[in-house]
Amino acid sequence: MSTTVITKIEAQDRRFALHGGDGSDSVHTSGEYAFAVTKLHTAGGLTGWGITLTLGNGNRVVCDLIEQLAGSLAGCEIEELMAGFGAVSKRLADDPALRWLGPHKGAVHLALSSIANACFDLWAKSRGVPLWRLLLDLTPAQVVALLDLSYVEDELSAGEALEILQAAQAGRALREGVLDTGYPGYDTSVGWFQYEDERVRENAREALAAGFRAFKLKVGSRDGARDVRRAAMLREIAGPACRIMFDANQQWTLSEAERMCRALAEFDPFWVEEPTHPDDVEAHRKLALSVAPVKLALGEHVPNRVIFKNYMQAGAVHFVQADCTRLAGVAEFLTVSLMARKFGLPVLPHVGDMGQIHQHLVLFNHIAMGHEAVFLEHIPHLREYLVHPASIEGGVYRTPQEAGLSCDLKEA
Amino acid sequence: MSTTVITKIEAQDRRFALHGGDGSDSVHTSGEYAFAVTKLHTAGGLTGWGITLTLGNGNRVVCDLIEQLAGSLAGCEIEELMAGFGAVSKRLADDPALRWLGPHKGAVHLALSSIANACFDLWAKSRGVPLWRLLLDLTPAQVVALLDLSYVEDELSAGEALEILQAAQAGRALREGVLDTGYPGYDTSVGWFQYEDERVRENAREALAAGFRAFKLKVGSRDGARDVRRAAMLREIAGPACRIMFDANQQWTLSEAERMCRALAEFDPFWVEEPTHPDDVEAHRKLALSVAPVKLALGEHVPNRVIFKNYMQAGAVHFVQADCTRLAGVAEFLTVSLMARKFGLPVLPHVGDMGQIHQHLVLFNHIAMGHEAVFLEHIPHLREYLVHPASIEGGVYRTPQEAGLSCDLKEA
Repeated sequence: MSTTVITKIEAQDRRFALHGGDGSDSVHTSGEYAFAVTKLHTAGGLTGWGITLTLGNGNRVVCDLIEQLAGSLAGCEIEELMAGFGAVSKRLADDPALRWLGPHKGAVHLALSSIANACFDLWAKSRGVPLWRLLLDLTPAQVVALLDLSYVEDELSAGEALEILQAAQAGRALREGVLDTGYPGYDTSVGWFQYEDERVRENAREALAAGFRAFKLKVGSRDGARDVRRAAMLREIAGPACRIMFDANQQWTLSEAERMCRALAEFDPFWVEEPTHPDDVEAHRKLALSVAPVKLALGEHVPNRVIFKNYMQAGAVHFVQADCTRLAGVAEFLTVSLMARKFGLPVLPHVGDMGQIHQHLVLFNHIAMGHEAVFLEHIPHLREYLVHPASIEGGVYRTPQEAGLSCDLKEA
Repeated sequence: MSTTVITKIEAQDRRFALHGGDGSDSVHTSGEYAFAVTKLHTAGGLTGWGITLTLGNGNRVVCDLIEQLAGSLAGCEIEELMAGFGAVSKRLADDPALRWLGPHKGAVHLALSSIANACFDLWAKSRGVPLWRLLLDLTPAQVVALLDLSYVEDELSAGEALEILQAAQAGRALREGVLDTGYPGYDTSVGWFQYEDERVRENAREALAAGFRAFKLKVGSRDGARDVRRAAMLREIAGPACRIMFDANQQWTLSEAERMCRALAEFDPFWVEEPTHPDDVEAHRKLALSVAPVKLALGEHVPNRVIFKNYMQAGAVHFVQADCTRLAGVAEFLTVSLMARKFGLPVLPHVGDMGQIHQHLVLFNHIAMGHEAVFLEHIPHLREYLVHPASIEGGVYRTPQEAGLSCDLKEA
């Protein structure tokens, strides 16, 4: 048997307590992060790791679904599997029974995310290269074969996807410079919702001193005055040259969002994030029009390429925060990134993976699709549990060199 | 302790094999129906039953989530709980950790559906009345207190909901006549996807003889010619006076849907159902424009009021197939029905409950909201497992008289 045949599939429910308000926002208060982990073992002793994020409770359900969905990968050779991964992904997404629980959203899709990421990790490890290298070495046609473009053909056919990748060959060598300079980060952990004002101030000063030039503040307090006060405070510390972003985590109704976006506009936010319900494309479309020039960012709760397509078609999103641990892994992330490129929208991932996988993906998006290298979210709270935590120096992600997707966890 | 205090909460994974192509469509081929059941037991010996439908695999995951979500109902007195059920529903839907797996969609929302239905069943049983009677006896304000209107306030405020119910008081006595005449049914089971042509013909003739005047055919074959042939066949048997509907179960891309809707238009369908992906509001909006006067029906995979709102705002749906076992139970079904009333759209439920709960809800929608009594889907395959299977005579649902939601199952 080939050493790269999948012989055993394992799901692991890994949970991590958060402390002192870390990770808190106006809506999510569990005090816990968790990864539903997929591990694909091969006869040759390789292990492909895949992850998706949850907030603790519910993680075992995703693990249960990983076991149900991934079974059919046993016996597959990884190069053969990945050569036509688009069809594999579609087959798993359209499981005749589990599809009913979505389709293409919710716990089942999170399970698929974890599984798909594990496939890519195993693939990259079997070739002994980091994910960004693996992807850059593929031809445009090979990249397109990774994608399930069903239900987005009206905006992104296989031919259009190919054209985007081919057109971006121009200037690619120049953009590869980012591999040496590193990819800029921004710091989300200065302003979690439950942090007291003084702590936010200290964190922002430290992040600034460490080299970060962009910071996020959680808003969405019942009393909007707290948001305004803290926004003023953060802008004062950041100064006019740094970027600051406000994140409401879906807390507002449409009319509250209109009021708060206007109130926060004076602090010149780079964006306002998740102002209202993530399913409500029409509310975001109206909001984008009514609070212009304030820009909207969203995506951490957009589960699939179809809804992203609707957001882009409606002009309801300015910053596409696709997350490869919410979407069906690396491949659906690439699909959304290609669509965003067509619509002229930047992709700035939400990092349900704490930036581990996304540090690879933004390099590929920049070099191979021509996406602008704006910055990548940075959240440090799970560093101690990772085998290869992302290396941030001077506010910049250093290019990862280890083989795979950099999401291996230390054993519990 | 009051006899109507919830003392024990139980989830049951109940599965039912289907035979000979029953229940098959172009996408869902599991050959199994399943209910994730919630049972709320009281000190007084009452049991509230709630159900949501799955297709087998995945049902245990929903049961797991029912157990996690419903725990907080222990110790609640049912009248107190239901007096402000809108807030209860919102609290459960916004569970600080489980919300991450949606929000408000997927397996978690199915669990909430089952739980909410069990609450209503227990409430109706504790009052000794069928659900339709319970709801009709509430004041408009009491109905509105059942609803979680968060994220739809921009189209349906509590005040607007109240006004719709108050305005519909006019003519209510007249519309109560439906309680005596019964509510018309339509027959979905004549034309399941895997049935051979001859079987469809026989079924349609039998259904016609039994009194049905509306029939559904599953379409979405890879070879569209099969769909067209069978559509012609069904129209011939049904004659020009009966209604026939075609259901593609999400099989088509937008361009395929355009082509097939045009091809099927000559058979004068009352609607074409689920032509493409249920998340793709924009595709349905374009389709509705391009294939007019063909009408679109959808909703069985629309998980919440927010997405229904977007469909209605976009003019992307003509027949609202809300399902109280996909939405968060009876209450979110009523929210969607009120929105549909505002938009002037008929509600013709998809019956994930085999029509058991919906036979109550369409009576309420007609009498108390003024919705037209068009017809209710009928699917007979689980009759033998139900304690009070719906009574259909002459193609008409007879008004149920048993207390509760009529979804008690015989013990396995």
